[in-house]
Amino acid sequence: MASSRRPGSPLGLHRVLDPPGVLPQAAWRLDTAAALWPDEVRVRVKRLNLDAASFRQLREAHVRDAAAMRSAVLDIVAARGKMQNPVTGSGGMLTGVVEEAGPDSPLGLAVGDTIATLVSLSLTPLAITDGLATWDGKSEQVPCDGYAILFGRSVATRLPDDLSAELALAVLDVCGAPALTHRVVAAAPGGAPAVAIIGAAGKSGSLSAAAARQAGAGRVIGVVPHQGEADMLTEAGLADAVVIADARDPVGLSGAVAAAGGPADVTVVCVDVPGCEGGAILSTAQGGTVIFFSMATSFTAAALGAEGVGADVTMLVGNGYVPGHAQLALDVVRAEPGVRTIFERRIAEHAEKAE
Amino acid sequence: MASSRRPGSPLGLHRVLDPPGVLPQAAWRLDTAAALWPDEVRVRVKRLNLDAASFRQLREAHVRDAAAMRSAVLDIVAARGKMQNPVTGSGGMLTGVVEEAGPDSPLGLAVGDTIATLVSLSLTPLAITDGLATWDGKSEQVPCDGYAILFGRSVATRLPDDLSAELALAVLDVCGAPALTHRVVAAAPGGAPAVAIIGAAGKSGSLSAAAARQAGAGRVIGVVPHQGEADMLTEAGLADAVVIADARDPVGLSGAVAAAGGPADVTVVCVDVPGCEGGAILSTAQGGTVIFFSMATSFTAAALGAEGVGADVTMLVGNGYVPGHAQLALDVVRAEPGVRTIFERRIAEHAEKAE
Repeated sequence: MASSRRPGSPLGLHRVLDPPGVLPQAAWRLDTAAALWPDEVRVRVKRLNLDAASFRQLREAHVRDAAAMRSAVLDIVAARGKMQNPVTGSGGMLTGVVEEAGPDSPLGLAVGDTIATLVSLSLTPLAITDGLATWDGKSEQVPCDGYAILFGRSVATRLPDDLSAELALAVLDVCGAPALTHRVVAAAPGGAPAVAIIGAAGKSGSLSAAAARQAGAGRVIGVVPHQGEADMLTEAGLADAVVIADARDPVGLSGAVAAAGGPADVTVVCVDVPGCEGGAILSTAQGGTVIFFSMATSFTAAALGAEGVGADVTMLVGNGYVPGHAQLALDVVRAEPGVRTIFERRIAEHAEKAE
Repeated sequence: MASSRRPGSPLGLHRVLDPPGVLPQAAWRLDTAAALWPDEVRVRVKRLNLDAASFRQLREAHVRDAAAMRSAVLDIVAARGKMQNPVTGSGGMLTGVVEEAGPDSPLGLAVGDTIATLVSLSLTPLAITDGLATWDGKSEQVPCDGYAILFGRSVATRLPDDLSAELALAVLDVCGAPALTHRVVAAAPGGAPAVAIIGAAGKSGSLSAAAARQAGAGRVIGVVPHQGEADMLTEAGLADAVVIADARDPVGLSGAVAAAGGPADVTVVCVDVPGCEGGAILSTAQGGTVIFFSMATSFTAAALGAEGVGADVTMLVGNGYVPGHAQLALDVVRAEPGVRTIFERRIAEHAEKAE
């Protein structure tokens, strides 16, 4: 058994080949041996779901040439033992079927379970065996045969039977946002806070808007960039007020939120464009909280922005992991037809764009 | 009166010349007219305290040539109406004497008060009138004659009589850290949390360690990079345990914190080097909180790092503004001789290095 070689670690340190001693995410190369340490799980991979930034980079670097994109992914995985795009640093997630679970695995998975990983591909040992022959390079969803290893502290969830795999994956991809929003709104001092969702007609935004209401928000203010999204959000019925504003314009954004019943006690930033820190801070009441889910958030812009306007706001880095996040997000989609419609529309738009 | 020209704004929007509509910090050029809007204050400047990153850039770009450094600062201020280094984007703070306070100013300052600004120079209208003739370019403390404008929502504090200006400025420069640490430690669920301070022998670190203890920490674990700092911290008596670890090594750092009584319920990152996110997260107990004060913090490394190890930790962007922060930090220095000794040693080291 592999475990005789080196002591195992729930973080997967025993799989790190180069450089030694770093976490799997920071490693250049991981050990993809199929034999399991006692707390590991091996998954037969069915599909990789590349992170949007990584997919965009691959498509642009290889001018949409499917063969070149396949080679690029295969080369990365062969060299690194994981699918971490060296340019973007990002990974994605995968779906597959549990092939073997070590006797000490704490993940509660059984052989035959169809699952999705909720930790990044950038730290997951992966071997590809089919040459990605059936991937046409048009979508970040990559049909794939091979296997992947989950560690003791990896996070994975069974795919639900009642939702399509495509819908479930899109929901799971952003499931940290509604879970943390729910927690913060439910704990807001005084109760029934006004909540502003910046980017409320997007995937993480619509889930967060619905989660805020479920958690007892007194008022949900949905901010969107243009009339088309405003119509979509109004139809979905997820916000008490829908306002159109440019999230990068602090004065315009905060004015619009104030006019719609703000300032907000909790502001949730769900738009992936740089420069939204100042506007989110100014839209938030003194003593309130801003949750930044956008990966385009600048740490210094947030820290200095709040200081510069004397804003006593709690600013949270949107942690993608909250216990129970997958279940909470899937339940929101089941309960809220408005959220489901937004997701289905986004998935359809995406498919069209890829044509 | 100037106020007849344009309506005033507590954020200083009326002073923004280019581009119109942005916040003063984001502006290329501010209006430095000496005449006040009703809620403004004009300060006779005595000294600029350039931000460390800005000073380093100026010194390197002009190979320590004092005349060239003076010209560079004068050119920036003449062009922009504020001292915001175009390369680093950063500013600093200033000290001076209140020359005129508008009738509607909410800052509570009186003519003749000696003050320091706690908002960045990067958003403060500034005019220099002495050509910086007495600055030798060796220190980021720049003797200066001229004037600056404070807005309704600017933050400034009177300089205390019982501490040297140099000590007070060094304390005020980092006063957000102990204030936010105090708040988080005092509110920790269950009380008496274990607190790890990464970089505890530094300026913000020593203040935060003392503030954590004052707020009821059950145990303060001070992390430092080498034996020299360990000795300094042990002598200062600010930590229950002093451990030496490389904050960029997640496995080493979290192991050291665990061995010293961790994992921590609250981890405070006070070291200005990149790559400390993973270690801070792993050093923190599930359900705990990490406060990032380092401007070298990467938002994505924090967000993805926590997700990658399934860490349910609350991650806070260290906001430099907390009501009462200046008073709290100055009081810590008055009450804790250990903190004062660390500051005096750091100031002396700095003066030596500048020679």
